[in-house]
Amino acid sequence: MNKILVLYDSKSGHVKQMADLVRAGAAGVSETEVRLLHVSEASPADLFWCDGVAVGSPTYVGLVSAAMKAWWDDAVKAAWGKIDGKIGCAFASSGGRGGGAELVCQSIITILLNFGLLVFGIPDYTGPGQTLHYGAIAAGAPQQGPESEACRRLGRRLAEWTAFYCHGRREEHPLSKKNA
Amino acid sequence: MNKILVLYDSKSGHVKQMADLVRAGAAGVSETEVRLLHVSEASPADLFWCDGVAVGSPTYVGLVSAAMKAWWDDAVKAAWGKIDGKIGCAFASSGGRGGGAELVCQSIITILLNFGLLVFGIPDYTGPGQTLHYGAIAAGAPQQGPESEACRRLGRRLAEWTAFYCHGRREEHPLSKKNA
Amino acid sequence: MNKILVLYDSKSGHVKQMADLVRAGAAGVSETEVRLLHVSEASPADLFWCDGVAVGSPTYVGLVSAAMKAWWDDAVKAAWGKIDGKIGCAFASSGGRGGGAELVCQSIITILLNFGLLVFGIPDYTGPGQTLHYGAIAAGAPQQGPESEACRRLGRRLAEWTAFYCHGRREEHPLSKKNA
Amino acid sequence: MNKILVLYDSKSGHVKQMADLVRAGAAGVSETEVRLLHVSEASPADLFWCDGVAVGSPTYVGLVSAAMKAWWDDAVKAAWGKIDGKIGCAFASSGGRGGGAELVCQSIITILLNFGLLVFGIPDYTGPGQTLHYGAIAAGAPQQGPESEACRRLGRRLAEWTAFYCHGRREEHPLSKKNA
Repeated sequence: MNKILVLYDSKSGHVKQMADLVRAGAAGVSETEVRLLHVSEASPADLFWCDGVAVGSPTYVGLVSAAMKAWWDDAVKAAWGKIDGKIGCAFASSGGRGGGAELVCQSIITILLNFGLLVFGIPDYTGPGQTLHYGAIAAGAPQQGPESEACRRLGRRLAEWTAFYCHGRREEHPLSKKNA
Repeated sequence: MNKILVLYDSKSGHVKQMADLVRAGAAGVSETEVRLLHVSEASPADLFWCDGVAVGSPTYVGLVSAAMKAWWDDAVKAAWGKIDGKIGCAFASSGGRGGGAELVCQSIITILLNFGLLVFGIPDYTGPGQTLHYGAIAAGAPQQGPESEACRRLGRRLAEWTAFYCHGRREEHPLSKKNA
Repeated sequence: MNKILVLYDSKSGHVKQMADLVRAGAAGVSETEVRLLHVSEASPADLFWCDGVAVGSPTYVGLVSAAMKAWWDDAVKAAWGKIDGKIGCAFASSGGRGGGAELVCQSIITILLNFGLLVFGIPDYTGPGQTLHYGAIAAGAPQQGPESEACRRLGRRLAEWTAFYCHGRREEHPLSKKNA
Repeated sequence: MNKILVLYDSKSGHVKQMADLVRAGAAGVSETEVRLLHVSEASPADLFWCDGVAVGSPTYVGLVSAAMKAWWDDAVKAAWGKIDGKIGCAFASSGGRGGGAELVCQSIITILLNFGLLVFGIPDYTGPGQTLHYGAIAAGAPQQGPESEACRRLGRRLAEWTAFYCHGRREEHPLSKKNA
């Protein structure tokens, strides 16, 4: 089985909604098991279990929430140097456009790089004026349409990369599908 | 006179539209002279002239355009170590939301910090769901309303900070106005 | 009086050593009062009090420590939108070169921009092969010589900028001194 | 064959020296072909050819050189949306410690994420006080010892990840080797 962890923090519920969409996207790839866990429920064992992880956070002063940061600081003790090469990506909600959601994705990417993960962004546009080059973002709750689709796309792409790279399922390469 | 430089690169015209709005915002502060210059028209002399500079760029692969980058690489020779303490800020347009406009602002901020400038962001919201914490951003052309207002606010705030800090005009402190 | 806050987190003591040096640098500017506070001792009142703040953190997974992050998340409630225009800068220690100290300075800068501060870097070299363009950094404890001098320079520059800009002491502009 | 591209810009020769070390590291993985190309010699065809790419740049105002930036801006036309899932990493030399080499690695990572690559950092220390969490860095020319070893490690790790992920050579997983 292809194993995906969706790890998130959420206070207002907006990132929770994004996480649900990321999960749905990942679950759309066949033979994929998804664990959706709030940061208070997750442990390093979940990191060891997964092939790939999508990390989502609300935007507090342009960086991941303190709770999400504390989780990774603690995870260093258990998982650091032992999960190199797993695949990762980011998503974030901010209070408004220009409010730092891209920077939060960048801060998540920084964390994942530190752990030795392979981290990706996505060139695709999910609709006019909406992309997810550094992870999926939303201002407030993810709106119906391209913003929600960006969350699903992120989850699907993560599960495609892990299916392709970790399980040798060559048909799951996203460019093969696009050209099919 | 309070002296503001608005320096921009633009291919599609979107950043040019933002720059016009930034200029208008700065010009709204009394006794302020604004130079609006495309990167191909500007020289380090314009940097020496100004009290503060707003730098705008389109988003190419999440960073300032090569033309804007080349301008600053060259400016290093003439202005580096000689313009410390001037005040700066950033604005950017991207092809879509999540496309890197915040990261472009960050890359501009990195450049300005390198030159020893004092760089600022703005906590204000210019409308529901629109802010400019790290500079003003737009997806495509700046839309009427909060997105355009963010560009004007950026220019006005820059001119307020230079009026306040460089010219001792205490009444121009934005928090004094807010509480007035 | 010129008022400087040096706010830091430290576990191993390395950032504490840096903070002491930053304090010494700031105290070298006449008529300057410096508060040196561990993040567990500081409150938003200290932010309101100061003209400028230097923020230092150890490097945990390429970002400020969770304790430092939590402090600013909480400070948002009391100080956000009320301290615009104060002056700020960053310093950080990492476990090794290439370990993320520059990225920690960047994450601190992101926080300070979010609060509307004017944030600066320093073009100066403090010795061969040592600068502090985005804040002062050290690998482990700050070494004698250029690395320690970078910390002192950061504090001094912060106090110079606040003396110059907040208190109208024109003789404190660092470029005036350099050319004197 | 495992195919690695080492793409660099260099003016002083420091990044060229790093690139040579990165190449040597990659070439140490069996059945690996390495192309070492200055940015003026490379074309998008080299991107299409490779399984993975290491990108190196000198530090100019905290970002990749304008020449390197221009190369990727042009490559967008030919390669963007067509090289998703290749593996990438970064290296950089700066004029001094604290001069922005980590930020240059970050700017390279931003570019590579934009193209849809899987980008990695490395938790390993290559000696006391030297790591390469976000790519290999040097202040000036790479010094003998841990700094040079970081460059070699980067190349080797890149070739290990492509061997493992693109060619199914399970014995090349770095954690398997470490535990062997």
